[in-house]
Amino acid sequence: MTENNGDREQVARVRAAVADGAQEFLAGLVEWLRIPSISGDPANAKDVRRSAEHLATVLRDTGFPTVEVWETPGLPAVFADWPSDDEGAPTVVVYGHHDVQPVTPLELWEHPPFEPTVVADRLFARGAADDKGQVFFHTLGVTAHLAATGRTSPAVNLKLVVEGEEESGSPHFADLLRRHADRLACDVVVVSDSGMWSRDTPTVCTGMRGMTDGQVDFRGPAGDVHSGSFGGAIRNPLTEIARVLAGMHDADGHVTIDGFYDGVVELSDDERALIAKLPYDEAGWLVNARSSTAYGEKGFTTLERVWARPTAELNGIWGGYTGAGHKTIVPSQAHAKFSFRLVAGQDPLDIQAKFRNWLARAVPDGIEWDVTFYGDGVRPCLTPLDHPALAAVTRAMSAAFETEILYTREGGSGPEADLQDVLDAPVVFLGVSLPDDGWHAPNEKVEIPLLHKGAEAAAHLWADLARSLRQ
Amino acid sequence: MTENNGDREQVARVRAAVADGAQEFLAGLVEWLRIPSISGDPANAKDVRRSAEHLATVLRDTGFPTVEVWETPGLPAVFADWPSDDEGAPTVVVYGHHDVQPVTPLELWEHPPFEPTVVADRLFARGAADDKGQVFFHTLGVTAHLAATGRTSPAVNLKLVVEGEEESGSPHFADLLRRHADRLACDVVVVSDSGMWSRDTPTVCTGMRGMTDGQVDFRGPAGDVHSGSFGGAIRNPLTEIARVLAGMHDADGHVTIDGFYDGVVELSDDERALIAKLPYDEAGWLVNARSSTAYGEKGFTTLERVWARPTAELNGIWGGYTGAGHKTIVPSQAHAKFSFRLVAGQDPLDIQAKFRNWLARAVPDGIEWDVTFYGDGVRPCLTPLDHPALAAVTRAMSAAFETEILYTREGGSGPEADLQDVLDAPVVFLGVSLPDDGWHAPNEKVEIPLLHKGAEAAAHLWADLARSLRQ
Repeated sequence: MTENNGDREQVARVRAAVADGAQEFLAGLVEWLRIPSISGDPANAKDVRRSAEHLATVLRDTGFPTVEVWETPGLPAVFADWPSDDEGAPTVVVYGHHDVQPVTPLELWEHPPFEPTVVADRLFARGAADDKGQVFFHTLGVTAHLAATGRTSPAVNLKLVVEGEEESGSPHFADLLRRHADRLACDVVVVSDSGMWSRDTPTVCTGMRGMTDGQVDFRGPAGDVHSGSFGGAIRNPLTEIARVLAGMHDADGHVTIDGFYDGVVELSDDERALIAKLPYDEAGWLVNARSSTAYGEKGFTTLERVWARPTAELNGIWGGYTGAGHKTIVPSQAHAKFSFRLVAGQDPLDIQAKFRNWLARAVPDGIEWDVTFYGDGVRPCLTPLDHPALAAVTRAMSAAFETEILYTREGGSGPEADLQDVLDAPVVFLGVSLPDDGWHAPNEKVEIPLLHKGAEAAAHLWADLARSLRQ
Repeated sequence: MTENNGDREQVARVRAAVADGAQEFLAGLVEWLRIPSISGDPANAKDVRRSAEHLATVLRDTGFPTVEVWETPGLPAVFADWPSDDEGAPTVVVYGHHDVQPVTPLELWEHPPFEPTVVADRLFARGAADDKGQVFFHTLGVTAHLAATGRTSPAVNLKLVVEGEEESGSPHFADLLRRHADRLACDVVVVSDSGMWSRDTPTVCTGMRGMTDGQVDFRGPAGDVHSGSFGGAIRNPLTEIARVLAGMHDADGHVTIDGFYDGVVELSDDERALIAKLPYDEAGWLVNARSSTAYGEKGFTTLERVWARPTAELNGIWGGYTGAGHKTIVPSQAHAKFSFRLVAGQDPLDIQAKFRNWLARAVPDGIEWDVTFYGDGVRPCLTPLDHPALAAVTRAMSAAFETEILYTREGGSGPEADLQDVLDAPVVFLGVSLPDDGWHAPNEKVEIPLLHKGAEAAAHLWADLARSLRQ
């Protein structure tokens, strides 16, 4: 950000506009948070629909001229469009979701999850951070943008798509995007469903890992046989599945599947330096990981491993006798569930084919086997550090927080790659949640001042993108 | 066997005596088989007791001067003693059991399991072969021995111990032996609870494998954690248990546990040649093994692998998410059940210690682990091929079957090692069951003519041991 008087004035004006709207913003968010829009529970389907209608009304009141509830074979999304009066203004699609996670176990909540409660600067409710709070700050953001710039329409063509099935794995989202691709055509996608490193270290997320998962089934004897009579003279499917799956990693923690790393976008020295700049505390990370020791691919730090390296994990394994006491059998069957986290340059379907080929070579005679994949997987997404849209988000965050902005990634996987691929547009992340906000957990909360910062950053971002994407 | 006229006459006399007693023998066995002495089902405890009382009466009627029902903390055994009138006669203990396996699933039985049914030469009933039929032929055997030799007491001091909990793992048998060690002191133990290679290839079993089994537990994170957030940067207990347990074998199928083969009594060239003499049909063996391919330790045949080589088997494995669909976690726990089959020269407690030590070296940092063993295990037993008692059994079987007798072993494990160790006497096997007799399965049967051969062999054996053990 170039510091000059114009910028300083703009920062002050945006801040003042956000402060003006803060009370109404909080009241509106609280009202929305009362709706238990749990997409994972069919009993709440009506609530998810009510949540969509409620958001549509709010967006109309905010000033969006076009607001529509978009049906899917499952639960509805909300679309809103506020065109810029400026000829040739760039187009932005903001992504978020209005559905929330289940709330069990209820007894662990200090305040009822759908009775939003403010304690000091914190707003406690299911969905406060993930993701209603972060969708909602865009209403305050665009209002502040107009107030601070004196405009009557945004400087960018501003569109919102807020889905209702993100917490259920976004089963219909890619189709929805394809069906409405013309109306969602854009220059950049802004995802507001992510977090920052910490209150003191505001960050921008630059990517998420992809994923593909499934199940491997091994069969040895046609039925369980006696280990005294046959043990040691036939293949034991448990021993073989252990041997084959243990062979997915070498002694240095590298994945051994042929071609697994083909095309992987490696971390540059600059990116590694930026990651190293974060105030990372391994002891604290281990507490969150509920683990005593970090371990992973040789040659990479913990953050590099979870953010920028692909992995092969076993999620479950079972076979043979698993009850109390003993049963000395060579069992007939063995099963395992696996998942691969993928990084930019890897494609889930390609990895599926490579794993299948690798299994075909690794499984010995005497074992029948099969592998099943759960769908087509999720593609990774990554914003290159030199992308103009990322630079704009960084400037906008810097204006809001008035400090240096660093970069993170997410180890998990989400629908962001669909936005990137279907809309053929770069994805940048604008999120202000904190690691301790309790996503998917009891006592989810959001820090109200950070939602204000999110609104400020959005206000700055629309003005910035109008300039920078035209250059 | 030295063929001479005396032997030929003796063979004929024994055969005639067995034929004389055959009808009464069958009627007595049928009566005993009606008692459902299932030791594994507490509902049948009274039947096991009734079976013991019934056998005691039969043995008294046979002529044993001393017959006692021996109590245990569980189900009773039967002891019988018929001293020889000959000064310095050797002492033999015959072992068998009077309890039987459960009979589920009942609907697969063609005849009710406790309504003994004769079809041609076959007697169908639970326990017909395992083990009542083979205990019962000793009543006919000793009667034929006396009739053929004109004696009024056996040529050996003949003792029987018939336990009532063999099908429940003989939990009190070693204690029972210890308690009565003075009354069971003997020169040789004859076990009649085994089988032959086939009708056309009568054999003597020379040993059984030992066994020790247990469970390994691995713990990684204190609870399941998200594989996106933490996968690739902490130890996954499923991957580690797979890696550690896969490492129990090398590429040639040898067990890698340090010292595992220490002291193993290796097969001699003679023994390998004798095993190779058996009319072994791998295709038929694979049908029984319900498998398509034989596989095992390099350098050994299938029969050598199951009879004479120690093994490490996985019997069960479980951990992480094993339900429908997917759950992308790094799970907290992984578990496996294992069993080692042991051969002569190995001791279960020693193998337990070696496995624990090996695990301590194999399990990496970041994994908490434990190993639990199910009891002290079962010791292996093996009769050396040049043992005089084995030579006597071979001659007795040869006299009964009038053909060459070959040798087998059993891959499974039983209480025979307790007899060998507690009584400090060699164990030899005298059994006439066939592989298709259906032990532990529906439609268990025994071949009545083979029970007669068993009785003949016993009759010859007592006369032979009286001579050969004195020499």
